[in-house]
Amino acid sequence: MLAGTLRQVLGEAKVSTSPSVLEAHGRDEGYPEVRPPLAVVFAETVADVQAVLEVARREGVPVIPFGAGTSLEGALVPQGPAISLDLSRMNQILEVRPEDFVAVVEPGVTRKRLNERLRREGLFFPVDPGADASLGGMAATNASGTTTVRYGGMRANVLALQVVLANGEVLELGRAVRKTSSGYDLKDLFIGSEGTLGVITRLTLKLHPLPEHVHTLRVFFPSVERTAEAAYAILASGLPVARLELVDDLALRAVNRYLDRNYPERPALFLEFHSATAAAMQEESRFALELVREAGALEVEAAMTAEERTAQWEARHQAYWALVNLFPQRKYLITDTAVPLSRMPELVGYARALMDEMRLEGNILGHVGDGNFHTLIAARDDAYARAEAFAERLVARALELGGTATGEHGVGLRKKKYMPLEHGNALAWMARLKTLFDPEGLLNPGKVV
Amino acid sequence: MLAGTLRQVLGEAKVSTSPSVLEAHGRDEGYPEVRPPLAVVFAETVADVQAVLEVARREGVPVIPFGAGTSLEGALVPQGPAISLDLSRMNQILEVRPEDFVAVVEPGVTRKRLNERLRREGLFFPVDPGADASLGGMAATNASGTTTVRYGGMRANVLALQVVLANGEVLELGRAVRKTSSGYDLKDLFIGSEGTLGVITRLTLKLHPLPEHVHTLRVFFPSVERTAEAAYAILASGLPVARLELVDDLALRAVNRYLDRNYPERPALFLEFHSATAAAMQEESRFALELVREAGALEVEAAMTAEERTAQWEARHQAYWALVNLFPQRKYLITDTAVPLSRMPELVGYARALMDEMRLEGNILGHVGDGNFHTLIAARDDAYARAEAFAERLVARALELGGTATGEHGVGLRKKKYMPLEHGNALAWMARLKTLFDPEGLLNPGKVV
Repeated sequence: MLAGTLRQVLGEAKVSTSPSVLEAHGRDEGYPEVRPPLAVVFAETVADVQAVLEVARREGVPVIPFGAGTSLEGALVPQGPAISLDLSRMNQILEVRPEDFVAVVEPGVTRKRLNERLRREGLFFPVDPGADASLGGMAATNASGTTTVRYGGMRANVLALQVVLANGEVLELGRAVRKTSSGYDLKDLFIGSEGTLGVITRLTLKLHPLPEHVHTLRVFFPSVERTAEAAYAILASGLPVARLELVDDLALRAVNRYLDRNYPERPALFLEFHSATAAAMQEESRFALELVREAGALEVEAAMTAEERTAQWEARHQAYWALVNLFPQRKYLITDTAVPLSRMPELVGYARALMDEMRLEGNILGHVGDGNFHTLIAARDDAYARAEAFAERLVARALELGGTATGEHGVGLRKKKYMPLEHGNALAWMARLKTLFDPEGLLNPGKVV
Repeated sequence: MLAGTLRQVLGEAKVSTSPSVLEAHGRDEGYPEVRPPLAVVFAETVADVQAVLEVARREGVPVIPFGAGTSLEGALVPQGPAISLDLSRMNQILEVRPEDFVAVVEPGVTRKRLNERLRREGLFFPVDPGADASLGGMAATNASGTTTVRYGGMRANVLALQVVLANGEVLELGRAVRKTSSGYDLKDLFIGSEGTLGVITRLTLKLHPLPEHVHTLRVFFPSVERTAEAAYAILASGLPVARLELVDDLALRAVNRYLDRNYPERPALFLEFHSATAAAMQEESRFALELVREAGALEVEAAMTAEERTAQWEARHQAYWALVNLFPQRKYLITDTAVPLSRMPELVGYARALMDEMRLEGNILGHVGDGNFHTLIAARDDAYARAEAFAERLVARALELGGTATGEHGVGLRKKKYMPLEHGNALAWMARLKTLFDPEGLLNPGKVV
């Protein structure tokens, strides 16, 4: 019925109800449940997006915008009958303006494809969540990642958005400029709204010059706490570090096995410096080495070639899948609390101890330069409730320390329970904003607020 | 009557109707009209703010939050009977947590006082609009300034806000963390809302380590266009420049006279590098010199001491008052358009030519690292309409080039006319947000939207 209407309006080629397609659109990479939508629409234009929303309004069926499906908190998983609005065919890089350090893209473009295109210009888009996410999806969750300590996350690197509202209206938010104080900041309101306020149909992105000189290090420590402390010492020094990642011993064991590496299986900092001049880079690296040695480093390895560098960051990014490989057939749960910088070593220690105490297997990985780290838990079926209890205790502790339930993955379904404690009465105002922009509750209902 | 009610509720000492106080609260530093409010309340606590809003609701009289009075676009100027809510007595630095790179302040703290307090911790708050503005006011206008090219503006450096809504409700927005994807970004919605959505009563700020090594240069060029081109070359090189300011020949002439300096009276770039190591700084400065020489620099001067550095930035910051001194008894008008980076030299040239063509006296100053520059016009009474026509043409050109009407000063009254063209139908949604948060129109009505 609904699929028939959609086919009538959009044409056969843009609508699917094949079970495998529905199944692929009823899940994400981190949420344990799969709930297929009624139909998947592959939008190719803004008019398609408007047409889907019109059907949604007429039929009273909600719409869930879908990018690359790499989210982790259930933001894509329907809570009832729904249309999945897949934006992967809106994948044109519309403009690259190297002279403005700006690219304009459709939401389905993935970050790796954009960066391939940008390389010849000597530019890159720095936000790097690991997964080859779509840029629309990255904006929807306010994604960030390994380079955020230096370049900022999506809010800092998306200059403008085009969005389609539930009523079909198209808004242009923000401009392709480095700064503006013109009117209310709707652009940042839509970033991180997880498809609940509107559908992102175009992004104007801030680009950065590819660093002339890159220096990448792996530094190994006797404990995760010492590793976190060393990260903090580097931050406090004012060194312009571009990446500052904690990778624990279990993660390296999993990576060694999954990717056939032979990194020492000890807690490590993965560091990178980006510099405009060779002398600056050498001096900064030398100073960083001094700091990590003072902080108790056992061993330092430098990536000597571009290949080795790529391999190192691949190792970091594959840590999740490496854990899945090490503990297959389990249920996985990832936390992404962030806390004020000085509390990060303490919370890392708390997480490690709590994981042991609760007899959970998992590792710790972190964007420690941002006070943000992940625990990845691989729970047997009968331990999943314990994993959830672990996450709840960790988030509660993070909030007590002045932190946030989610540094970068977003709220989705799984973290809604933390919102009242984190936001207090501001949460009711978020719900009022939701009602203002989407009075019929047609856009990804049940998520965030 | 109203003042009597306010005195009854808040006490004599917090309410003033003295003509000089009213006059000082009916103006700002850039808008040509003065319209005294009915009364000024000097709030000392959040409860005071709530009490004023309660009176406002009961009596139907609007409230205009007032910080240091340094805004430029009429945001503080009443459009009818109004209470000015002066927050300068809420001036406590509540917490400095060097270990978290965080300070928590009341809204009346000025940026200079905060930085004096931070110096002993080896930290600073980087947003520097020139004037010794209050931090609450800076958040209200999303201020930025000379260091934004490196450190970002207020949105990037305010981590959390406490605000009081028109209905008296107190909201806590954001957390003292480097990143969060938790819920809708209300914090950034209130930043830049110019007191129209709520009253900012506390700010949590992101601090930065004072740079170990600072190198400051003045580079002189044959024309403003060449100066702007040199600025662009430095940006494109990826050099981590901390300040990159264009100061034109007229501005230097005015500064020489006002501050008794002897800078060459030619268009100049004022540059600064902040580095963690001496070698990095030297190398970056050397590379920058190479670039500006290639771009046609005539002369380079380096600030050799901290005093000389301070003097150089004082010269930049006093440029407005220097112009007022050079052309006293006039009406002044400042523009602050920002455009995509590559269009900046073109727009600087356009502004220069248009100013001459329209027989207006004024100078050009710019945060050219952000594509943002100011024209400061000193108009005789009979030329003020021409100055406004100049600003309109300049903004229209900036918008055509993909830019914004205001990079950092905000909308206030003067720039409201540009909002429909800049925001299209998004402006109606801004108005709906205003109505949602302030249904009775009690908070700074007539501004922004």
